[in-house]
Amino acid sequence: MNRPVLVVGGGPAGLSAAHALAAAGQRVVLVDKSDTLGGAPIQSGYAKLVPSGEWAKDAIGGMVKRVVDDKLIDVRKNVTVKTFTGGPGDFRATLSDGKTVEASTTILCTGFTHFDSINKPEWGFGTYPDVVTTTQVEQMFSSGKGVRCPSDGREPERVAILLCVGSRDRQIGREWCSKICCTVSANIAMEIREELPNCHVYIYYMDIRTFGLYETKYYWASQEVHKVKYIKARVAEVTSNGERLVLKAEDTLVKRPITIPFDLVVHAIGMDPNVDNKSIASVFGVALEEHGYLGKKNSYGTFGETSREGVFVAGSATGPETIDDSIGQGKAAAIAAFGLVHAQAGAGVAA
Amino acid sequence: MNRPVLVVGGGPAGLSAAHALAAAGQRVVLVDKSDTLGGAPIQSGYAKLVPSGEWAKDAIGGMVKRVVDDKLIDVRKNVTVKTFTGGPGDFRATLSDGKTVEASTTILCTGFTHFDSINKPEWGFGTYPDVVTTTQVEQMFSSGKGVRCPSDGREPERVAILLCVGSRDRQIGREWCSKICCTVSANIAMEIREELPNCHVYIYYMDIRTFGLYETKYYWASQEVHKVKYIKARVAEVTSNGERLVLKAEDTLVKRPITIPFDLVVHAIGMDPNVDNKSIASVFGVALEEHGYLGKKNSYGTFGETSREGVFVAGSATGPETIDDSIGQGKAAAIAAFGLVHAQAGAGVAA
Repeated sequence: MNRPVLVVGGGPAGLSAAHALAAAGQRVVLVDKSDTLGGAPIQSGYAKLVPSGEWAKDAIGGMVKRVVDDKLIDVRKNVTVKTFTGGPGDFRATLSDGKTVEASTTILCTGFTHFDSINKPEWGFGTYPDVVTTTQVEQMFSSGKGVRCPSDGREPERVAILLCVGSRDRQIGREWCSKICCTVSANIAMEIREELPNCHVYIYYMDIRTFGLYETKYYWASQEVHKVKYIKARVAEVTSNGERLVLKAEDTLVKRPITIPFDLVVHAIGMDPNVDNKSIASVFGVALEEHGYLGKKNSYGTFGETSREGVFVAGSATGPETIDDSIGQGKAAAIAAFGLVHAQAGAGVAA
Repeated sequence: MNRPVLVVGGGPAGLSAAHALAAAGQRVVLVDKSDTLGGAPIQSGYAKLVPSGEWAKDAIGGMVKRVVDDKLIDVRKNVTVKTFTGGPGDFRATLSDGKTVEASTTILCTGFTHFDSINKPEWGFGTYPDVVTTTQVEQMFSSGKGVRCPSDGREPERVAILLCVGSRDRQIGREWCSKICCTVSANIAMEIREELPNCHVYIYYMDIRTFGLYETKYYWASQEVHKVKYIKARVAEVTSNGERLVLKAEDTLVKRPITIPFDLVVHAIGMDPNVDNKSIASVFGVALEEHGYLGKKNSYGTFGETSREGVFVAGSATGPETIDDSIGQGKAAAIAAFGLVHAQAGAGVAA
């Protein structure tokens, strides 16, 4: 009767869901399409995470180890779910390796896809090697090599971080805000200032969205402790003068064009819907919301539920999300799934 | 062995925690200091909620009913916890009514306190009856009477909503951002425009923080569908010319002072730490964070935990929070508590 819960995706949401279920005594099958658990923070080589300040390899790596070591969790890597039939308490998933999993419920923790800056060509990515993404800067930190200009390995003296690359941009079909890039960028700016105290760091923004308690830890600390400069601007283009990058923008506070040279320009890339979402929605029979993320039931009483009973969802699969909220949602979906299993078991006993 | 989980506070976080635990077969004692469950959305008479659009009395009211009707949940109203001793699996709480509760774990869902606009006197609240708070406008909607000027009951022709009242304001000791006021204000602005199509609604802001998918549903819809106007400004003062309120501000985009008459000025009030937090922290032996909210362990692997083992925390007790994230955190804390109970039970069996 007590079939495992199928957790799809081994990022922060999936890892926390699987761990929480196992801690409650519930068997889990966790599948991941890649050969490395941990999701974006591990696969993309993030450095120190917002807001805990833990290194990704320690924090998320620890969550991976906890899951892999748990006897109640059966981890299947390098597999996807090809079909998913049945109903609550009695689902059957066929995997890409030909195996079958019988599951009571499932939790979709299938995450997001980083925006590809090549789709914003006027901002220089793909043309100039010293135009990079926040993910690349994370990798520079996590590699231990520090922030350097890819073109020649020099320490940058002037860095610009451009917010909303692939977010809040209707011209390229990304109307949503990616929620966490402002705070991640403030964090990166502070880390650059710590590593390279003589480097000037500018953040080009539309609105600064360091919401809630991030305001103190990131917005104020970046400006007051770390002397990061914020420029409210509309970015026009990134070019080169042969020696340095040249960033042209309109300062929207003083209403005039500004042209400033930089050694390194960083795109704060947004969170696209997972490129596989259409297929995922089709396989699991759940609805997508208007932007292409997996749809949630729009009701407080049904937190974590999708349009299909017994199929739950958590984390950035549902829209741009922070890591800690992804973890919280993973655990919330876990107890929702657990409750459904419990109700089924109770019905079984009563029958 | 299986003692109940003590949930403290019957708002969105506490209601969702209690329900999730009961659905998993776990007994709960839910205490609330008031005689009305539902927390701020019910006690303050909120109208349609962000982001589900459900009426508070239906959505949160439904969550209250679900909890009250559950045989596994023992609801105790009009009580507070006076002492809390023991350790995980074996806590003992004494209540203000003299009774004792033995509990395996506890979840603190003790919420926040609305900022009192009287502490921002230069913005007119307490001096002019037509300066009101977002909470009062919510009550106007939920009462069914609609938005009217308190001074004489007339329909306002011009409404200004001032963001960040009691938030992002170091002058009055509120440095944090209250996270959800931007979105709630956009929602209220749209509702006013729906009820009073000839009424002009302006939102005065520093940054618009309609993060994530709120961008489409609130930021863009309020401007494009409902013609709400946004003014980036520093508000100086609210006075009266005898007939209307007069709002003086500096437009920070055009860098000049603006003085505009309004019929109704709405303070988008922030979320202070619960005024009882010092006492709550003392009774439960948990740490406060720097602003006075209940402290969370700063690690992804310990989501929902406080500084004291077996004492969990969720929702706006920990900082400004949305209702849906409060619900998610309530459920996340629930499975963390449940897992601890399960581990204790397992240890008991093994012993």
